[in-house]
Amino acid sequence: MDKYIGIDVGGTNIKGVICDRSGKLFAEDGVPTGARSGGDVICKNILSLIDKMLKKADLSINEIAGVGVACPGMIDGRSGTVIFAGNLFLKDFPLGEKLSSALNIAVRVTNDANAAALGEAKFGAGSGYSDSLFITLGTGVGGGIIIDNKLFEGNLSAGAELGHTVIREGGRKCTCGRRGCLEAYASATALIDMTKRAMLADRNSQMWKICDLENVDGKTAFSCSDDPSAKKVVDRYIKYLACGLTNFANVFRPQVIILGGGVSAQGDNIVKPVQKMLDYQLFGGTKFAPVKVVCAKLANLAGSYGAASLVM
Amino acid sequence: MDKYIGIDVGGTNIKGVICDRSGKLFAEDGVPTGARSGGDVICKNILSLIDKMLKKADLSINEIAGVGVACPGMIDGRSGTVIFAGNLFLKDFPLGEKLSSALNIAVRVTNDANAAALGEAKFGAGSGYSDSLFITLGTGVGGGIIIDNKLFEGNLSAGAELGHTVIREGGRKCTCGRRGCLEAYASATALIDMTKRAMLADRNSQMWKICDLENVDGKTAFSCSDDPSAKKVVDRYIKYLACGLTNFANVFRPQVIILGGGVSAQGDNIVKPVQKMLDYQLFGGTKFAPVKVVCAKLANLAGSYGAASLVM
Repeated sequence: MDKYIGIDVGGTNIKGVICDRSGKLFAEDGVPTGARSGGDVICKNILSLIDKMLKKADLSINEIAGVGVACPGMIDGRSGTVIFAGNLFLKDFPLGEKLSSALNIAVRVTNDANAAALGEAKFGAGSGYSDSLFITLGTGVGGGIIIDNKLFEGNLSAGAELGHTVIREGGRKCTCGRRGCLEAYASATALIDMTKRAMLADRNSQMWKICDLENVDGKTAFSCSDDPSAKKVVDRYIKYLACGLTNFANVFRPQVIILGGGVSAQGDNIVKPVQKMLDYQLFGGTKFAPVKVVCAKLANLAGSYGAASLVM
Repeated sequence: MDKYIGIDVGGTNIKGVICDRSGKLFAEDGVPTGARSGGDVICKNILSLIDKMLKKADLSINEIAGVGVACPGMIDGRSGTVIFAGNLFLKDFPLGEKLSSALNIAVRVTNDANAAALGEAKFGAGSGYSDSLFITLGTGVGGGIIIDNKLFEGNLSAGAELGHTVIREGGRKCTCGRRGCLEAYASATALIDMTKRAMLADRNSQMWKICDLENVDGKTAFSCSDDPSAKKVVDRYIKYLACGLTNFANVFRPQVIILGGGVSAQGDNIVKPVQKMLDYQLFGGTKFAPVKVVCAKLANLAGSYGAASLVM
């Protein structure tokens, strides 16, 4: 069976896999990104990771059917050019072209959230569904959309910015410049911010017993569910998340919405109440074309698997 | 060239066309819907409209390659069943099947906003673009999405409910049961409501000179643009509409967003300010993959043309 390489470029590390269409893994490895050293160094590091994995799997590049790359930021999917990637300090960088000419093999590049969506759809929590929506609840809110088993990226791959849809017009400032984006309410960053505010407003909260302000993370409020201030934070966070997900459900009506990123580690604590609120708000009810909420399964391999799927 | 019938079932009238792939019209006509008399009467009326049009065009049903039907409400696109259509008083009604067995020809059914989107994409304002989004600003806010020249309806055709996406969490009550939906801010109904409130709050407004409260319509505020209270209504309406459209632009990144329905008759008065706000808010800016806002072109024939396109 044909073998494929999937590369997931992050701000700190580059991860990679060699796998086949069934998801069988032949190698898995990582190297530092070297993001601050510029695009050519990132390319060099990707090539050395590929070399390392090929050696591990006892394969040559001639035995590889294609290379897919997941990259943060805005990507032109046709040319493989990184239009803009803030945390990699790249702008109009022809990543796909550079890798393709170095390896002498077809290379496709997509946004990292899109790749993770594809990875989960093919080999993870979306397996068996033709239509899924993946949303990462991390530093930001990213997303990817699978329609009829194919990745939907919008015209010129510039769409699927699920985090940058306003749910509270005129609300909290978002990193994109708008006000009230889902990212400003449902990211781990937003959750941490809400938690800190709740702690400052309630000096007797149990949350102070498990951490001080500097150590607050996305788990703090969830782990003090008996505390009224913590419960309020969790309830609000879930209300906002469910609002955004119901918007996507009404527009895409996928069979399944997959939650990824740090906050999704809460599992049923987040899936169950979000499912309940989504079911209550879903257009036309849940009898026809219900939408299931689940957690991601592939953890930090979703992006690499998805990148490999790009060229399958 | 093959000929197709497109039928657009409305709450009051049923409209229809016979056309070919180039959009050439062989007949166009209409009959009353008879919505309150039940599904079988609606079917009978559709069949008599088809008969009337065939006679007009001097054609027999054997010369027709397919029949498409646009219908309000939630439709199961595979079976042609009307799951629910409030203004037609239909629930789980097998419209496609009934028409197909009466005519002995393939019949496809879709939601009316989806059909209008397809009609505009193929023969109207979206012609020449592969990716467009159509939004009707009428009694409600409906929408349709064209991806890669094909209608996207969501899993089981239950998606594309663009009006039922929340832009103000906890805001105005929507007909769907949620609070803060775009429909509650950007429909003609919402515009009329805002206009009435502004008139009641300002007894000296110019708007009182052109109508009293009972005659307020979607044009009232727009036609008094020198009046501060009217201008405020228009500015708020446009802000909400641009917010919703930017959400869709960030997710679908279409080449063009087409405004239809009564409010779109304002033309440049609405297109220009909405385009400006959308451009300002669009994720990643407008240099890469810009999104153009335009008005619909086919007026009340978009649904019939789109219905015919379903079977082309």
